[in-house]
Amino acid sequence: MNNQILRIVPLGGAGEIGKNMTAIEYGDRILIIDVGIMFPENDMLGIDYIIPDFQYLRDKTDRVEGIVITHGHEDHTGALAHVLQEINAPVYATPLTSGLINVKLARRGAPKNVKINTFNVGDVIRLGPFTIEPFHVCHSIPDAVGLAIETPAGLLVHSGDYKFDQTPVDNWPTDYAKLGEFGERGVLALLADSTNADKAGWTLSESVIEPALEQVFRQAEGRILVATFASLISRMQQVANVTERLGRKLSFVGTSMRENAKIARRMGYLDIPDELVVSTDEALKMPPDQVVLMCTGSQGEPSSIMGRLSTGRNRLFGIEQGDTIVLSSHPIPGNEETVYRTINRLFQRGAEVIYDPIAPVHVSGHASQEEMKLLIQLLRPKYLIPVHGELRHLHQHRNLAIEMGMPTENIAVIENGQVVEFQNGEMRLGERVPGGYVFVDGSGVGDVVPSVVRERERLAEDGVIVISVVLDKYTGEPVKPPVIQTQGFVYEQEAGELLESLEDEIRRGLKHNLNGSMERYLKDRLSGFLYREVQRRPVLFVNVQKM
Amino acid sequence: MNNQILRIVPLGGAGEIGKNMTAIEYGDRILIIDVGIMFPENDMLGIDYIIPDFQYLRDKTDRVEGIVITHGHEDHTGALAHVLQEINAPVYATPLTSGLINVKLARRGAPKNVKINTFNVGDVIRLGPFTIEPFHVCHSIPDAVGLAIETPAGLLVHSGDYKFDQTPVDNWPTDYAKLGEFGERGVLALLADSTNADKAGWTLSESVIEPALEQVFRQAEGRILVATFASLISRMQQVANVTERLGRKLSFVGTSMRENAKIARRMGYLDIPDELVVSTDEALKMPPDQVVLMCTGSQGEPSSIMGRLSTGRNRLFGIEQGDTIVLSSHPIPGNEETVYRTINRLFQRGAEVIYDPIAPVHVSGHASQEEMKLLIQLLRPKYLIPVHGELRHLHQHRNLAIEMGMPTENIAVIENGQVVEFQNGEMRLGERVPGGYVFVDGSGVGDVVPSVVRERERLAEDGVIVISVVLDKYTGEPVKPPVIQTQGFVYEQEAGELLESLEDEIRRGLKHNLNGSMERYLKDRLSGFLYREVQRRPVLFVNVQKM
Repeated sequence: MNNQILRIVPLGGAGEIGKNMTAIEYGDRILIIDVGIMFPENDMLGIDYIIPDFQYLRDKTDRVEGIVITHGHEDHTGALAHVLQEINAPVYATPLTSGLINVKLARRGAPKNVKINTFNVGDVIRLGPFTIEPFHVCHSIPDAVGLAIETPAGLLVHSGDYKFDQTPVDNWPTDYAKLGEFGERGVLALLADSTNADKAGWTLSESVIEPALEQVFRQAEGRILVATFASLISRMQQVANVTERLGRKLSFVGTSMRENAKIARRMGYLDIPDELVVSTDEALKMPPDQVVLMCTGSQGEPSSIMGRLSTGRNRLFGIEQGDTIVLSSHPIPGNEETVYRTINRLFQRGAEVIYDPIAPVHVSGHASQEEMKLLIQLLRPKYLIPVHGELRHLHQHRNLAIEMGMPTENIAVIENGQVVEFQNGEMRLGERVPGGYVFVDGSGVGDVVPSVVRERERLAEDGVIVISVVLDKYTGEPVKPPVIQTQGFVYEQEAGELLESLEDEIRRGLKHNLNGSMERYLKDRLSGFLYREVQRRPVLFVNVQKM
Repeated sequence: MNNQILRIVPLGGAGEIGKNMTAIEYGDRILIIDVGIMFPENDMLGIDYIIPDFQYLRDKTDRVEGIVITHGHEDHTGALAHVLQEINAPVYATPLTSGLINVKLARRGAPKNVKINTFNVGDVIRLGPFTIEPFHVCHSIPDAVGLAIETPAGLLVHSGDYKFDQTPVDNWPTDYAKLGEFGERGVLALLADSTNADKAGWTLSESVIEPALEQVFRQAEGRILVATFASLISRMQQVANVTERLGRKLSFVGTSMRENAKIARRMGYLDIPDELVVSTDEALKMPPDQVVLMCTGSQGEPSSIMGRLSTGRNRLFGIEQGDTIVLSSHPIPGNEETVYRTINRLFQRGAEVIYDPIAPVHVSGHASQEEMKLLIQLLRPKYLIPVHGELRHLHQHRNLAIEMGMPTENIAVIENGQVVEFQNGEMRLGERVPGGYVFVDGSGVGDVVPSVVRERERLAEDGVIVISVVLDKYTGEPVKPPVIQTQGFVYEQEAGELLESLEDEIRRGLKHNLNGSMERYLKDRLSGFLYREVQRRPVLFVNVQKM
């Protein structure tokens, strides 16, 4: 059996590689790590979210031994409902991760609760030829793990999303000893998080946030609103600590924030005394200088609480002069414009807004360069496969390993769908399998393909014009004036002249005696006409009826 | 005359305040500072660029004494052609700024060359009640100035875009002595660049680039391509210096880069020996390790050279394994996704890509916090009006001034269109005038208004469906099957079932006997049907003909 091939198959994801879903195969047995979603890039118009293209697994579903989830973030858990519809395999996760998955599935109205097998670090999970030893890592959510996967072909280590926080808020550092032990045992290949591979040094500890928050809170004379991710449990802890020290009360605003706080408190991941917490209703009745409201919307999402507050569309309360707002997050790449616009609007409404770099109120949950090097030193893997990051991050991760003396040929910088194979302790590139992504739009999964998005791009560029003409079937003359309707083309009230000259052009076009299709002829002719007139190319629909 | 009102009127611009165009009024005389364009934000779909809304000046064009341009960047010069169509006033600029304006206008096929009155620092420009003393400032383009404007109501100082570079590439620092002199004379109000108001410390000198470039160039074994802005003349100088030291040859690729280099060399702002420069054709025939190509596209613009190289669509040459590409720029906010995607694609094609923070190959052209404080210390203005930046930057600039002891009420954080008035040495807020912006799309100026852009958003969200039905005018029965055309809605080849059930729904709808419009009824009915089926809301056009 030792001679069979061990294969690593990074499945889809937009932009990042090996992030949302990875299959590990030994012989014909398969282990899946994470099944997450991605959020659309700015030019993926109208798309709600993206799931990995797991096409490759469709004819192998009976070979899947299990699905192991490393931590509770959407980009590692969010596609579970989609995947379980087709792959009936047991799911494994730590207690908090399981809890968060169930909360989210319930909120989305998933048909049945997913049954998740809960494990703790120290447990050993045996799935066919895979013996999995989860180990604790620090990340921006508690109960996160990396995975050591013993296979007959050798030991793989998958870092998960991690950082080496020396003073984590929950006092539970990444498990150095365990990593050292794996290193002693001999690691065939390391798959490691590359997110911050272009950041020099060592990521700041989550604990630096608390004094920064305290300083901001002390200066605030009115209400304090803190916006962050609903999954950032340790940030909740720190906000609670400071709130208590300053004698204010804390209210979690909005469903996801409230539910995550509830489950984290119930399961003991969050230590907040009952008397510190008040309902939002109560908080709004208290004097402004006695409350802290914690909510979502740090990415400026229009439908989030902070997004609605910035545009004055929040139902329960609005921004008031004297409010201090802390955005305890960094913009996710691509969101910068939205986040900064939200900040501007909050200032406009009279709030003082504190965000990094004004004050160090956020740190990353991912390792920087020196931590990446430390991970490599601890594990001394024979091979390195940088994952979790865009191609540019994977390249920088590779450059770091080369600086440390790792042979270039022992590092595989790959893209999604590129299989990496190990046999007799040697690494080689295997086949390419589908490794793209599938758009989810409304309730449709995969029916909006990239060509449909390109059509949307054209529509968004110059709008649409729909022209209807009814001709006398004997004389070929228009029976009534052509109907011209537009959307997204011009401001019709002020474009009378242009639309009139378009109508004239239609009449001129109709005079042509054609053998072929009048609709196609008119479309080409009017398209040329409009480009000459206004240098735009709206999408044209031309409908000619004869009666 | 001393009792008349001095008014500062920041005119349009998207996002940034007082950036693209500002009017200064004393009594009924008007001075305009800068007339620039802005590039659209990501959600301004299909818009080419944005010009200030100078509505306010339309009935006052005969009162405009002159237009003074601070430097040659598009966001300060690009709307000149539009403004001069309506305002016939003399234009004033430094020699390089004039040269760049003429190059750009000629390239855009402007009807006539704008006649620009050239000035140098040290000159005094008298325009009605305004006596203007331009002073030299360092910025990311040479020959940039700030303006001291003496009026009967007091001395205004406008910083322009500036930084206090102690070791500028052209050895020409910002004019401290002049600033000190203004300070001695007594400054009523300072209008100062706030772009980097959230950056602590002092912006690095442009000179730090050269050693960083040299280190990168020395490690490159193949071709070197440097992408930056075509207006970054000092960056060209530094690339040329390093190229010469390492015995390579330099080629400027692309029209804008070549033309700007030509004019800057001709006018003495760029010191590059003839024998160092080769044509692109020559460069491409030389051994890879002997050339440096300098081109545009550092923002990943799809039509730029670097954009085309990243997607393999550049006509003259492509990326080769072993190429080293230096992106000597930072992403402009909102461009991050495009820039990083371009970098990923260049890696994918086998290049090594160097960008900040991998190496310090770019610095900002704007002052950071300590420089802003220094400017205030040198000038000791009575009033401060932060300009050039988003609202959040203006607020931070205000906070810096308050920290320095300036009374809060002496600082006006305003938005575009908010007039600030000075009378008897006192500042107050005046009226609000139109201070928005006007979209330019194709050859249309202002005919695409925000509501048209919202229509484009809706089209981009779920696409469009055009339905044509022909009914028998006596029986009301369809004469032929309904025609359903879609764009941006679904991948039609795979959505047969959905489109068939839509057709069935149309037939069901047609059975209803209505008094009102069948078109409106069908539109509502089908819209509801589609939302139930796929949870999407495409834009619907329904056309019913009777025959």
